Amino acid sequence: MEQIQLAENVKFSRIVHGLWRLAEWNMTDAEVVQLIEQCMELGITTFDHADIYGDYTCEALFGQALRQKPSLRENMQIVTKCGIKLLSDKYPERTVKYYDTSKEHIIRSVEQSLRNLQTEYIDVLLIHRPDPFMNPAEVAEAFRQLRQEGKVLQFGVSNFLPSQFDMLSAHVDEPLVTNQIEISALQLEHFGNGTLDKCQETRIAPMAWSPLAGGSIFRDSSERAVRVRGVLEKIGGEIGATSLDEVLYAWLLQHPARIMPIVGSGKLERIQSAVNATKLSMTTHQWFEIYTASMGHEVP
Amino acid sequence: MEQIQLAENVKFSRIVHGLWRLAEWNMTDAEVVQLIEQCMELGITTFDHADIYGDYTCEALFGQALRQKPSLRENMQIVTKCGIKLLSDKYPERTVKYYDTSKEHIIRSVEQSLRNLQTEYIDVLLIHRPDPFMNPAEVAEAFRQLRQEGKVLQFGVSNFLPSQFDMLSAHVDEPLVTNQIEISALQLEHFGNGTLDKCQETRIAPMAWSPLAGGSIFRDSSERAVRVRGVLEKIGGEIGATSLDEVLYAWLLQHPARIMPIVGSGKLERIQSAVNATKLSMTTHQWFEIYTASMGHEVP
Amino acid sequence: MEQIQLAENVKFSRIVHGLWRLAEWNMTDAEVVQLIEQCMELGITTFDHADIYGDYTCEALFGQALRQKPSLRENMQIVTKCGIKLLSDKYPERTVKYYDTSKEHIIRSVEQSLRNLQTEYIDVLLIHRPDPFMNPAEVAEAFRQLRQEGKVLQFGVSNFLPSQFDMLSAHVDEPLVTNQIEISALQLEHFGNGTLDKCQETRIAPMAWSPLAGGSIFRDSSERAVRVRGVLEKIGGEIGATSLDEVLYAWLLQHPARIMPIVGSGKLERIQSAVNATKLSMTTHQWFEIYTASMGHEVP
Repeated sequence: MEQIQLAENVKFSRIVHGLWRLAEWNMTDAEVVQLIEQCMELGITTFDHADIYGDYTCEALFGQALRQKPSLRENMQIVTKCGIKLLSDKYPERTVKYYDTSKEHIIRSVEQSLRNLQTEYIDVLLIHRPDPFMNPAEVAEAFRQLRQEGKVLQFGVSNFLPSQFDMLSAHVDEPLVTNQIEISALQLEHFGNGTLDKCQETRIAPMAWSPLAGGSIFRDSSERAVRVRGVLEKIGGEIGATSLDEVLYAWLLQHPARIMPIVGSGKLERIQSAVNATKLSMTTHQWFEIYTASMGHEVP
Repeated sequence: MEQIQLAENVKFSRIVHGLWRLAEWNMTDAEVVQLIEQCMELGITTFDHADIYGDYTCEALFGQALRQKPSLRENMQIVTKCGIKLLSDKYPERTVKYYDTSKEHIIRSVEQSLRNLQTEYIDVLLIHRPDPFMNPAEVAEAFRQLRQEGKVLQFGVSNFLPSQFDMLSAHVDEPLVTNQIEISALQLEHFGNGTLDKCQETRIAPMAWSPLAGGSIFRDSSERAVRVRGVLEKIGGEIGATSLDEVLYAWLLQHPARIMPIVGSGKLERIQSAVNATKLSMTTHQWFEIYTASMGHEVP
Repeated sequence: MEQIQLAENVKFSRIVHGLWRLAEWNMTDAEVVQLIEQCMELGITTFDHADIYGDYTCEALFGQALRQKPSLRENMQIVTKCGIKLLSDKYPERTVKYYDTSKEHIIRSVEQSLRNLQTEYIDVLLIHRPDPFMNPAEVAEAFRQLRQEGKVLQFGVSNFLPSQFDMLSAHVDEPLVTNQIEISALQLEHFGNGTLDKCQETRIAPMAWSPLAGGSIFRDSSERAVRVRGVLEKIGGEIGATSLDEVLYAWLLQHPARIMPIVGSGKLERIQSAVNATKLSMTTHQWFEIYTASMGHEVP
């Protein structure tokens, strides 16, 4: 599988596995190990976490499994995130969901992630959401310390608009290496609001969360879903895809921004779909058939 | 007539002639030659094309005429565009209008434009529309090759928002020399969305398409059209304009961004209006009377 | 009181006093002197004006008072603005409110402000509004001349969006030192449109006009006002504030962008509230309780 060089010391696999719902899968440690091994056999070596996934439980489930077979860590890249403070039974003192990008919280959150994940370093740490209360100089200090201590190799962001990206970039010592955004054939917002442009301007490869748009495309009876589904089916036939998943992944993979889709499934066949998609190719005409169906009108 | 230096080797006349509707004018080659000569006598030396105008026919009509009097080329600047693939009987395989800014298409499109226009070089090539599927590195390669081969002197864009402009600018070897945008007293969008700001920030002079807003201002009975028309008439009287066209052109010409209006008419008197407007001047107060009438409320 | 270093030769007090409504207060010169002295005793040394305040009268009222005690000028910073031309009985020839950022107008306006304020220099001159008809090169020339003549120490803007800020910044000789914007717990626009991000990117401290949102929060019976008021009251109790004003000021002061609120009151107790707020502190949780109440939904 293709690898994307994010920085001198970090390469991601083009397809990333997302552990967002790991807690829901009710897997034993052995099953998680098997899932990781299956991913790695397919060439998926990058695993996406966040401190808050599964109400703060997913990292630890992954870490427990990793402890069963520590050698897996060597060929794996771990992404995790910080900065959101969830309403949770674990934090009964909170009465509002909020963000915390203070130096203290970032460092404490990473240290907790390291313990949870049972690893000595994070490959890439992302600030989970743009924080209206951010002190970018403090974030930069946290990044500097974590880098010097060897706890995090590189830093990036998630869901950042261009102005937020520029703001933080102006303060950090080294370039941010990715922006993880919601982007798919059904979620075109970042094609139009400058976010994807900023990635291509700065030559950073974005990660795509919800690359299948949460699966609604497969079920919805809305006019838009029906229209897009029809085009996906047609093009799937033309390019030799065996499922709509594959067409949706192929559509993202074909884009020159080197989008890295995150597959958030515990089922091998769904993960396989994303990997299959890396071998498909579609014409520019086909790409725009999907884009146009999603927009609901032709390009200007 | 004033000339605008876009780059060391390209100067445009302040008023540009647009050949968008050349195919509709049903002119003989001799009539096109006459039109070109009349423009040039008025100081209009820059002619604006696109591969797709007239369903891919306008460039060739112009080129045929130019062949009747090749010496005209020496004192003329030719602009053309590429990147849109129209639905057209000429391309029956297309089922959707789309964009193609691949290196291969850009180069092939320019080579076809050169044949159509019967010229050896394009003064300025524009990417016609921002392409959500653009690979800016590939566009830059195409530009580099076309420049080295002497086929295109300079490059620009059309209808690009600031983020798209920055994205492509970060990849090309030399600065983009213009952005051709829809801007007029009736189309104020680019005053507010950063596009005109970006032109003034980067010191590039924009070209204005539809500077008369498609002529609707002369006919519409909408509240807005009536309101603006009233103000245009009043100010036309005050500044010595002999038509509303002249006031609309003068309003654009007065703007410090050095906007270059494109006159898309085959009729000498309409072209003359734009040229007359270069000799008019209005006060800042008058400029804002028109701006305010168009907005429908006073400035904040 | 904390001071903010805007440039090598200009420091502002963290709380700024605004003279917007000075003409409405019907104060004698002696009363204005007393107000200034009370502010300065509280550490408020920066006074915010504009040519147009009070229908072009406030600067002169302040200047008259200052003449009574010229020594006050030494420890005071004066901000004023130019660029708006109001509809006013004083300018009967105007039929529309408009902007004028020509070199001639900027210089003439400053010279008038100097006479009105009875001072020899302005600490910081702001362009009052982004001007769609701005010639940034001309603005830069005006700034250069005013700086060389010692009439203005530094320059900034007001109500500028990021694209407008970048546009002017690309032309002026020295960095713009502030952007005075409408920002408060009830006016969140600039948190989302990139304006505050641009301030933090360029490390300039913004000034906040209408930091109490015009006081509507204290009176309105709208759902939003009631909701926010409830949260302000609760947090006011928690942090030891003695009025809602203090909580609103504290919310701005707590933000890492080093926002400088402008207090536009002639009453000592209202001014005292802002000063008191500099000694309050709230947690990030509390900051987001207010932010969330104002948005009406939790953060994403």
